[in-house]
Amino acid sequence: MSSTLIKKSVCKLSAYVPGEQPKGRTFIKLNTNENPYPPSPQVAEALRTLDPDVLRKYPNPTSEAVRERLAELHGCAASNVFVGNGSDEVLALCTRAFVEDSGSMGYFDPSYSLYPVLADIRDVGTCPVALDAAFGWQTPPADLCSLFILTNPNAPTSMLFDKQQVEAFCASFKGVVLIDEAYVDFSSVHCMDLAMKYDNVLVMRTLSKSFSLAAVRVGYAVGSEGLINALMKIKDSYNLDGIAQALTLAALKDMDYMRLNAERIIASRAVLSSGLKDLGFDVCASETNFVWVQPPDSIFASDLFEKLRESGILTRYFPGPKTGHHVRISVGTENEVEALLSAVLRICKEDS
Amino acid sequence: MSSTLIKKSVCKLSAYVPGEQPKGRTFIKLNTNENPYPPSPQVAEALRTLDPDVLRKYPNPTSEAVRERLAELHGCAASNVFVGNGSDEVLALCTRAFVEDSGSMGYFDPSYSLYPVLADIRDVGTCPVALDAAFGWQTPPADLCSLFILTNPNAPTSMLFDKQQVEAFCASFKGVVLIDEAYVDFSSVHCMDLAMKYDNVLVMRTLSKSFSLAAVRVGYAVGSEGLINALMKIKDSYNLDGIAQALTLAALKDMDYMRLNAERIIASRAVLSSGLKDLGFDVCASETNFVWVQPPDSIFASDLFEKLRESGILTRYFPGPKTGHHVRISVGTENEVEALLSAVLRICKEDS
Repeated sequence: MSSTLIKKSVCKLSAYVPGEQPKGRTFIKLNTNENPYPPSPQVAEALRTLDPDVLRKYPNPTSEAVRERLAELHGCAASNVFVGNGSDEVLALCTRAFVEDSGSMGYFDPSYSLYPVLADIRDVGTCPVALDAAFGWQTPPADLCSLFILTNPNAPTSMLFDKQQVEAFCASFKGVVLIDEAYVDFSSVHCMDLAMKYDNVLVMRTLSKSFSLAAVRVGYAVGSEGLINALMKIKDSYNLDGIAQALTLAALKDMDYMRLNAERIIASRAVLSSGLKDLGFDVCASETNFVWVQPPDSIFASDLFEKLRESGILTRYFPGPKTGHHVRISVGTENEVEALLSAVLRICKEDS
Repeated sequence: MSSTLIKKSVCKLSAYVPGEQPKGRTFIKLNTNENPYPPSPQVAEALRTLDPDVLRKYPNPTSEAVRERLAELHGCAASNVFVGNGSDEVLALCTRAFVEDSGSMGYFDPSYSLYPVLADIRDVGTCPVALDAAFGWQTPPADLCSLFILTNPNAPTSMLFDKQQVEAFCASFKGVVLIDEAYVDFSSVHCMDLAMKYDNVLVMRTLSKSFSLAAVRVGYAVGSEGLINALMKIKDSYNLDGIAQALTLAALKDMDYMRLNAERIIASRAVLSSGLKDLGFDVCASETNFVWVQPPDSIFASDLFEKLRESGILTRYFPGPKTGHHVRISVGTENEVEALLSAVLRICKEDS
């Protein structure tokens, strides 16, 4: 077919490849940072009792009840909250609301591998800012670009940036800072207060990880009304389906359940981290639901990834000079952590 | 706050206003073309039996099973099908995949009022093509723009364009033709075959109307692999949530239920149309689940709309020189149609 039918920048694109969702063989799935525990019983109850007749009507177009509940949780107004079809949608809308066609967007390198893909989709420039050799903070220039996306704790490195450094950057930066707090419920520090303190700051969260609702696709951003309104104006009319709104409300009613699960995962993370350290791994200080680890010299990260896969355990490997020496391993259940450690021990023994 | 944080074209936007979803008072809701009947019992069953544990995992990113089922229904390959978070998402993606930043998109006037809003959001030009005075077909110039969206049957006019004229236009047009068949299950003719015959044609459908799933947000487009791939490359990674995928599969298994409901609505449409004609209304020949009617000279359309609202019946009124003489009324249940006709009779009597 004639490629002249398609926008030139889209012709050049290659699509983002999400982490593998295996079919057929059963794997221990430690590759996409999913929560190993089911969502709250209140979510199950909301699903079971949902009246199918409501499905014939359009959902609330602005997810009002969800935004009101989130506002209550975060001590702001509903007009300070935007809810999207997963953080994915919030991110994509930010690239369209806060970057001119001739502009560019920034992010740390390494960070979430979707960000440069979003820039390509939006057909704008990229300003990656290299972290230091230990994946530590580097302050981006204040006039670098009109949108800087900062994941904190960072992925795939699992480490938390110092809040004072983050705040100083927000105060100095001339554009919008989007702080992606996807993993913050597994962390000791959050930056939600910066969203209400600075007009140019959005803090984004997701229900995919700590709330065990990855399948439901709900993410949200908190910030000044000006920024939130811009997102509202360009979203799809009914961006969040009615069932997702109902289940989100149920999940947000049961914060204790989420926190208990997060604590359980944090405890397993400690077991996983010290187990891998004992096997000679370099383990970054994780404040997320995954660990970012460099295997001992006896085995390449890529080989470990492959051998774990052969053993029925999926982890994530990102090739490249900055990430290619590490493997990212999601924190599973206690049993999954044990299985992972046993497999790693066996693989390391075979290799030495 | 400083508006310099926000893309200039977004600052200028005003958001699309969807049809009212009333709160508090109970209305007979004939304003948003929702199906008056619940979705298939198979959808209810799928909802009831969905294992909450699956919600913690990411959904299939490309809605594979849904696309395979749709391909089977339409006699094409899954690679010819794109599934979106409602037709809304499919439409927005088309404006980004098939229109250059300096380009423009076309549509009939009057047609779905969202189209010019989408052009504004995308910050591209618009090429509205005026229908004739009886809302009849006018062939758009072959090199008018790179994307032309054609609703067939058209909304809000309810009328079907002649398929030969549509096909001749598709064959001559230099850009992409998106045929929005949101209402086609209430119509005697469809154009799905054109999607497989012409490289530049997409046919879009939705589960919001005939399948009674407006709350679930599922729309899809069928067309050549080249066009479908372009949409795939720029969509959000997990654009359709896992529950929507499961419910869509259930709905698509029960085509008989959908067709029976559609027939029931078509029968009610005949009652509604002849009832309004008897009251002196000019009623367009509807092939949709709504009627587009001009009241007799004794009452303004805007007044009828307001008085129906006061009587507890919501319809839709679009101000403006081309649409302001008409009211759009969704076809409800048999009882709702009866209530509407009684209210109209009373209002017309009061006025004369």
